[in-house]
Formats: sequence, structure tokens, C-alpha cells
Amino acid sequence: MAHSETLHISTAGNTDILDLTTEVQRVVRSSAIETGQATVFVIGSTATISTIEFEPGLVNHDIRAALEKLAPEAGRYLHEETWHDDNGHSHVRATVMGPSVALPVVGGIVPLGTWQQIVLIDFDTRPRERRIIVTVVGD
Amino acid sequence: MAHSETLHISTAGNTDILDLTTEVQRVVRSSAIETGQATVFVIGSTATISTIEFEPGLVNHDIRAALEKLAPEAGRYLHEETWHDDNGHSHVRATVMGPSVALPVVGGIVPLGTWQQIVLIDFDTRPRERRIIVTVVGD
Amino acid sequence: MAHSETLHISTAGNTDILDLTTEVQRVVRSSAIETGQATVFVIGSTATISTIEFEPGLVNHDIRAALEKLAPEAGRYLHEETWHDDNGHSHVRATVMGPSVALPVVGGIVPLGTWQQIVLIDFDTRPRERRIIVTVVGD
Repeated sequence: MAHSETLHISTAGNTDILDLTTEVQRVVRSSAIETGQATVFVIGSTATISTIEFEPGLVNHDIRAALEKLAPEAGRYLHEETWHDDNGHSHVRATVMGPSVALPVVGGIVPLGTWQQIVLIDFDTRPRERRIIVTVVGD
Repeated sequence: MAHSETLHISTAGNTDILDLTTEVQRVVRSSAIETGQATVFVIGSTATISTIEFEPGLVNHDIRAALEKLAPEAGRYLHEETWHDDNGHSHVRATVMGPSVALPVVGGIVPLGTWQQIVLIDFDTRPRERRIIVTVVGD
Repeated sequence: MAHSETLHISTAGNTDILDLTTEVQRVVRSSAIETGQATVFVIGSTATISTIEFEPGLVNHDIRAALEKLAPEAGRYLHEETWHDDNGHSHVRATVMGPSVALPVVGGIVPLGTWQQIVLIDFDTRPRERRIIVTVVGD
């Protein structure tokens, strides 16, 4: 069996972190798959999907601070010089973290930890309308 | 076909890196799936799954040194100030690396390189009992 | 249904970034799977798979510059001291980014963004012949 749905999510950009857990669990339930795998994937090259403890300290400060070291907003990017753009750091962060997360499905749900949420992180420099593809395969 | 098993792994925390390869290959064999995909996922928000050449230099020093630059143990984390906790760096490292790895299954096994092992890395600041979910789907 | 193919790709090493999109879409089409998931995985512990806007600024400079901060080529690695090798940074970068990407399959293709390509990044310090495993599962 296989099931797919597209989520439409509005973001503020600039490392905005949004909790997708309720929506992903709803898609998994509506697939009626008991055992298998779910993939959560963001279309585009300036955003990522991961898991996090969704609390304000990590979400509004700590993740941002670490990624500023890896790919600072005010750094020099040939991407920006070539395309007269301002989101070189957004692309670099997204490529390093990847566009998706692979999740297990057991007993008809994704078995997350109590303080583990599935998130979209949008690194682009402006608000975006994102399409997130959730696919579920299994029995 | 779909198959799932939970592995229970004791870690020392503090970027402890443990080789899961034998256990993951055992789960794949017991699924009897010849062609498909396996997902290895850790429950919790302070650990990750990846692959590595499992040798002491990388495992005990080099990975740790790089992650100290990205998210230093002694850095300032709002997560710690809010929750009177000491594992802000653990959360940041886990979110950047992600909670899982997606693997192919071909000929009834995961076709790894000779010097490529599947590992759990536990970033938390104390020993933990981890639950790792391995799911296999395919034919 | 499940389908698997191996791609053979020659790289220049040294953070060479190669566009695999056409080949991955061809494998997905030849699977005849309409809805499901594809995994793209590189065998070996010094390379990664991700997505990127495949344009020269990011590909030839910006990704490289960020990873030089995380794991510099000229850094000190116990891996190199133990094995008289020169690719400690290659291993660290590969483990942090992971060996694979999980992708959705919808309508018989991987639904990528216009400026989002699937890439192999080879961090090793010499040209390599890489084997990439693409598996597709679904209906």
C-alpha cells in the first residue's frame, strides 16, 4: 500500500521553525498503514525537515545561532554575487541538513519521543508558501 | 511486505558512537525482504543515526571535534536557561544531523561499503537507554 | 512493488558535486511505481547525497566554504594520524550530512522544485568510482 498527501504551509522565512507533527500523524492515520515508513519532504532548495524538541529556546535562538556559525547570513556567497540574491546562507543550510526525514510507522503512527516533534525549517529570506509531500508505504 | 523491530541500546551519552550494523542486518534478514528500503530511526531529540568508518580516530575524536565547533558544549543556549538543563548542544547537534537514515535493501541485505557502518550517536549529557526503530518495506 | 538500480558515477573527489536528477527520475519511471518513496544512497563513508540548486556559485564555492569551517581540510584528525591518510575531513563531512536522501514519488516522478536537483557530493581527496543505489517502493 502507498499513500501521499501535500501539505501547504505558510512560513515567515529566516529560519522560521514550524511544527508539522499533528499534520504528519493525520496523514499516516488516513493512509491506514499499520507498519511501514513515512517520508516528509519539502519542495525547494532553501528549507529542511528534521525533528526537534519544539520549545522556544531551541526554536527561536539555539538552532539559529549554530547555523549562523556554519553559514552566516552576512557571509560572502558566490550564489548572491551571481544572481543578485541574498539567500546564499539559506541554500547552504538546506543542503547540509537535507530536504527530508525518513520516519518509521508502527501501530499506525510515527513513534516519536515525548519531546520530539517533526518540523519544517524555512531558511529563505522572505515569507514562503511551502509544499510538503508526505508519503507512507507499508502494510 | 513490511517489517518492524525495536532495538534497545544502552549508551554512555556525550557523543557516544555505537555500531548498529550487525543488528540492522539481522532485522533486514528476518524481514525476508529482498528488494526495498530500511529506515533506522532513534526515538528522542538528542541523538542521531548516520554511517561512518567505525575506527577509533573518527569515533573518539574527529566527529566530536567538528561538532564542538558547530554547537560547543560550553556555549550559551536558551534551552538551558529556560529549562535549567545542560544539553542545549545535544539538541542542536541532533536536529542538524536528523533522527534517522534511509537505507536500500538489495539481495536481502543493506549494501554497505567495507568501511561503512551504521551508527547511533548519542549527544545527551548522561547515559541513556535508547529505542531504535528499524522498519523494512519492499518485496 | 519494489525496484532497485545501481548507478556508476565517476567523480573528481574534493567536494565534487554531481547532478543525479536525470538518472534518478529515469530509475523511478522504469520502476512503474506511481505513489511511494525513493531512496538514493551512496556506498562508502566519504560522500553524501542531498539536494541543491545546481548552479556554479553554490556548487563550486559556497558549499565548500561552509564545510571548510565545520571540518577543514588542513585540520587535525586522529583518523589521519592512525591510518596515515589525508581524508579525515572527508569522513567527518560525510557522517554529518549522511549517506542518503529519502524522496517521495507522486504521479510516477520525484516532485522536485524547479531549482532543486538531487546531487552526489564526493568529499574524498582523490577521484573515485562511486556506486549509488536507487530503490523505489510503492504502488
